[in-house]
Amino acid sequence: MTDADVTVPAALPELDPVIHAQARLRVMTTLSTVAEGDRLAFPRLQELLDMTAGNLSTHLRKLEDAGYVGVDKAYRGRTPVSWVTITRRGRLAFEGYHEALRAYLGGRND
Amino acid sequence: MTDADVTVPAALPELDPVIHAQARLRVMTTLSTVAEGDRLAFPRLQELLDMTAGNLSTHLRKLEDAGYVGVDKAYRGRTPVSWVTITRRGRLAFEGYHEALRAYLGGRND
Repeated sequence: MTDADVTVPAALPELDPVIHAQARLRVMTTLSTVAEGDRLAFPRLQELLDMTAGNLSTHLRKLEDAGYVGVDKAYRGRTPVSWVTITRRGRLAFEGYHEALRAYLGGRND
Repeated sequence: MTDADVTVPAALPELDPVIHAQARLRVMTTLSTVAEGDRLAFPRLQELLDMTAGNLSTHLRKLEDAGYVGVDKAYRGRTPVSWVTITRRGRLAFEGYHEALRAYLGGRND
């Protein structure tokens, strides 16, 4: 066995921890597919991600606190429904996250 | 604002939580650049990742428990040094992680 040194291809950038947590990464990835100006019903998002309402709410709150998503309450008939959007700031942060992630994926020669 | 639905391009696969945690992702990314059969000194890994010895040890232990890295104790002169390697199983898990991650990156049209 050889005592190796490595030339790390490039410094590995910080990955935004608000986005990196797996549950929130799934939320952001799904919301990023929604066209700008559109919004997604909370129950539909829950179904797509197969998350409990409580768990999804917790993660949405963290994303909302960071200004990455917006949650609006409205009514569908008589039923209250929350609508979820990704904000402009959220899209930018998500793009930055993707760019940072590519540095990790590019770090390996495959 | 339109009430959107989305066609999620593909189910988002589970990302191995042992690897996904940012600190361990950095460790695995760095170790994956070391040629097969080579090993890296603990202090060098610490320096590359700019982590405290305690923090790095904690994460290495989790990776070791999963069978993804091996840690060997040896002496460099009279000084005890730990040597870190990525295992075959670790390389395979890391490849699987990369593949899963690409599903997330491909989920956006950019």
